[in-house]
Amino acid sequence: MTTPAPRRGRPGYDLQSLLAVAVELFNERGYDGTSMRDLAGRLGIAKSAIYHHVTGKEELLRLALDRALGGLTAVAGRARALPAPAIERLEYLVRGSVEVLEAESPYVTLLLRVRGNTEVERAALEQRRGVDRFVAELVAEAISDGDIRPGADAMVTARLLFGLVNSIVEWYRPGRQERPQALADAVCALAFEGLRVRRPSRGR
Amino acid sequence: MTTPAPRRGRPGYDLQSLLAVAVELFNERGYDGTSMRDLAGRLGIAKSAIYHHVTGKEELLRLALDRALGGLTAVAGRARALPAPAIERLEYLVRGSVEVLEAESPYVTLLLRVRGNTEVERAALEQRRGVDRFVAELVAEAISDGDIRPGADAMVTARLLFGLVNSIVEWYRPGRQERPQALADAVCALAFEGLRVRRPSRGR
Repeated sequence: MTTPAPRRGRPGYDLQSLLAVAVELFNERGYDGTSMRDLAGRLGIAKSAIYHHVTGKEELLRLALDRALGGLTAVAGRARALPAPAIERLEYLVRGSVEVLEAESPYVTLLLRVRGNTEVERAALEQRRGVDRFVAELVAEAISDGDIRPGADAMVTARLLFGLVNSIVEWYRPGRQERPQALADAVCALAFEGLRVRRPSRGR
Repeated sequence: MTTPAPRRGRPGYDLQSLLAVAVELFNERGYDGTSMRDLAGRLGIAKSAIYHHVTGKEELLRLALDRALGGLTAVAGRARALPAPAIERLEYLVRGSVEVLEAESPYVTLLLRVRGNTEVERAALEQRRGVDRFVAELVAEAISDGDIRPGADAMVTARLLFGLVNSIVEWYRPGRQERPQALADAVCALAFEGLRVRRPSRGR
């Protein structure tokens, strides 16, 4: 995927760079609060030049949400296919979701703000719910495997786990992490091992 | 604190019940998107009847944010005063924050959406940052005590911990929990003990 910088003077955009600017604007002002005129203004091109690439604002939203969902459903698919216990598949899914969030943070931010006002948004919410159900299934399976403590509520645990992952968009800024996977490691350590050092098993 | 149901026919509100309706509306439409006319409409009273209680919309916001912040800073104050290691004070603060969130969920939801557009919002954000700094200090102290694993980044850990707590407002509905403290227990179990059962120390 190429995302060339716009040329000076008479800027040119391909679909991906146009989409990146649209998502930036949607995240700043809200999708409903952004017009094609606003977008043309930010891009410094005529509205007609945008319609060369897409049929309208809703197609931009669909492409942006598809990009976030594509990443997340691909990770979920790989987690589903993993020949490993549910707890391992769950950790794989959490780790992969953090990595998608880091790689595609503006797109995932937009996805997490969708409230279902349009057909495109409702379709995206339905796909998100599919991933949520898969998480709840994995948690339930890990509980029955004895890998998560017996008293845990599968639905509450699934919500907390993905609340934790999704909360990252509130403060994440691309390029600030000192090394790749540091954030995914921190999330998995917190969620799966817990903050408190396991003294008895380490003989301390 | 009494919050009588509005009387039928000619409804009457005290400040607390008026505030509850205002917060409901702010959470639905956004603070900026809610007018005093909207609020009067929802209450079924004249705007002048609202001005009997408050000077305007910004005072309603300040009262609402103070209610959420009052609960959270009280818990932080008790955590600070606790004669216990940092890891215990941190767990006390997390547990207490979940309980405030449950007891005052509409007010905490409003607080978490504040973006700093007005003086009242900026003051609330500054108070939230004070609590965030305290969390980061407790995490750093618990790391140096050896109670949180040495590799942990104090700031990232603090953000994840409160991202986890704050994410609850996205799905929490008052009165659905089967027993008091179930949610606070689930959050603390996830964050401090981790999901994965500690087999070696349990001899399993």
